Amino acid sequence: MRDIHIALDMMGGDYGPRSTIPAAIKAVADFPYLHLYLCGHSQSIHTALNKNNALGHPRLTVVHAEQVVNQDERPDLALRRKPHSSMRKALELVKDKQADACVSAGNTGALLAIARYVLKTLPSIKRPALISALPTYEDDKVLLLDLGANIHHCSDTLFQFAVMGAVMAKEVEGIENPRIALLNVGEEDIKGAEHLKRTADKLMQCEHINYIGFAEGNDIFAGKADVIVCDGFVGNVALKTIEGVAKLIISKLRAMSETSFFSKIMIGILMPGIRKLFSKMNPDHYNGASLVGLRGIVVKSHGNASSKAFYSAIKEAITEAQRQVPEKIKDKVEVMLNAVD
Amino acid sequence: MRDIHIALDMMGGDYGPRSTIPAAIKAVADFPYLHLYLCGHSQSIHTALNKNNALGHPRLTVVHAEQVVNQDERPDLALRRKPHSSMRKALELVKDKQADACVSAGNTGALLAIARYVLKTLPSIKRPALISALPTYEDDKVLLLDLGANIHHCSDTLFQFAVMGAVMAKEVEGIENPRIALLNVGEEDIKGAEHLKRTADKLMQCEHINYIGFAEGNDIFAGKADVIVCDGFVGNVALKTIEGVAKLIISKLRAMSETSFFSKIMIGILMPGIRKLFSKMNPDHYNGASLVGLRGIVVKSHGNASSKAFYSAIKEAITEAQRQVPEKIKDKVEVMLNAVD
Repeated sequence: MRDIHIALDMMGGDYGPRSTIPAAIKAVADFPYLHLYLCGHSQSIHTALNKNNALGHPRLTVVHAEQVVNQDERPDLALRRKPHSSMRKALELVKDKQADACVSAGNTGALLAIARYVLKTLPSIKRPALISALPTYEDDKVLLLDLGANIHHCSDTLFQFAVMGAVMAKEVEGIENPRIALLNVGEEDIKGAEHLKRTADKLMQCEHINYIGFAEGNDIFAGKADVIVCDGFVGNVALKTIEGVAKLIISKLRAMSETSFFSKIMIGILMPGIRKLFSKMNPDHYNGASLVGLRGIVVKSHGNASSKAFYSAIKEAITEAQRQVPEKIKDKVEVMLNAVD
Repeated sequence: MRDIHIALDMMGGDYGPRSTIPAAIKAVADFPYLHLYLCGHSQSIHTALNKNNALGHPRLTVVHAEQVVNQDERPDLALRRKPHSSMRKALELVKDKQADACVSAGNTGALLAIARYVLKTLPSIKRPALISALPTYEDDKVLLLDLGANIHHCSDTLFQFAVMGAVMAKEVEGIENPRIALLNVGEEDIKGAEHLKRTADKLMQCEHINYIGFAEGNDIFAGKADVIVCDGFVGNVALKTIEGVAKLIISKLRAMSETSFFSKIMIGILMPGIRKLFSKMNPDHYNGASLVGLRGIVVKSHGNASSKAFYSAIKEAITEAQRQVPEKIKDKVEVMLNAVD
């Protein structure tokens, strides 16, 4: 196994080194070929390493960064005013080929803006997309993209999202000939906006994509497709609605548990299982979401995520680095463009 | 209490008279001022009435209609080829002022198309919208629109949706000065598509609307707003995603219940409460969704809905008729347009 180098933004997320350090230490322990660049305030990182008896670990390299992008900072301001942030540093290590991938739990908007600025999109790729896996009824996974990297949409962009989703499904999830669907408001061909129809036409004509048609919101979890493509506005609303439903159900179960002693005991026993399910349904809490379409690998862990979630995001970055996802996307997009032209 | 006349499409939905007849009988029993027109195959309706000992009820009038719009029929074809459908008949009774409102559990797309053709939109209203109530954490309600009556969107349409939502919140839900939010992908003013920003500007300038800003998908259930406005594509995806999450959770709970005898018992006891919650979250299963912006009241009950859900939809139609919702919308839109001009 070749060595893998990953740059971590240690300061991102609500907990900073408190959650990123234990994840980093566990990752180098579990993967002997893994080297990590720990980007952030060197003093805080050293203190945290020391506390975890990991100071001087040969595969953990601290890279000092003076600035931190705040969770609520405006992306454009973070890009302009924080050239020395831990997030920027981690992305620059990827750009300079010192790292194979970067992981951050920081401000999503800022990460998108800075990643796009530092790494640039792949040749022919119009816009990067945020992609993540959701569970299905049958315990399979479905990849959903775009989850909010773009607001604007057009059929060319959606077509490229489908291609990138297909590459991720094959390379990361190991699905041969993944089934691709377009999110729409009806399964019938007659429904939907014009740009979706144009995207569907293009996908149908493309022999390199296993396009299976339109899917509706209730099909996301049904396992009908391996990849569901939508624009970033719709994807973000869908993802956040799922988060809202999960919270609503937990609050209602809590209320139910107050109705009797018996209910309290029962719901108390069931709650861990239910919480685990919800954490899977809230994918960036769980696996991290990946930013695809750039000249480098960027994995976003949730801002409010635990050390375990940050560790999962590191694992995701390792897989994408091993499978050389950006190169595969570049190759596939080129094949497509030649086929379409 | 003045008499209320409601036209029911008896043939719509997956069960037809089997679910619509018991609902109609219960409704006339509960509301002594209610008269119902039962539109559909007169023979099937008479048979069902007879079976339920309600033949000859003085406030149940059978109106024969030869045709039935199928659940999967293309809306444009249903409009052109089924001029004698039970759905069309019910809508025509509203148009002819014989009925104050119409209720159907039939094909949503066909109902929208035929309702728009038969009833027409209110003066100055660009497009009708489908609106329904969802529960919040605190057991309040939030109205969400548009749920899929329109695919296209522009700021003028969204502004009118906000006005119609405000009228529904006040007249049907009894909320004075309802809080109106626009669904977006971020709470910050900087995010979102251009047409949303223009809508937000208009709403902010409008003293007749209590506009509180943007809301995200996870805010839908949080009780921050009384009305959340979005375009039909996004609203439909959000609603169907909620339906998908509910199904996923039920399937996972079932799987959990297989793990031990104890789990089976516990989940068996909790399941009715959980199902009840989900039915509330799937609003058209529960209350029916209303089509607003037309010169008449149209309530849509879910195609797969029980007799209880159809009864709820009839109750919703009664409230809207009593509060004269279309007139209120017309008046409010006129005031707004004069204020904006």
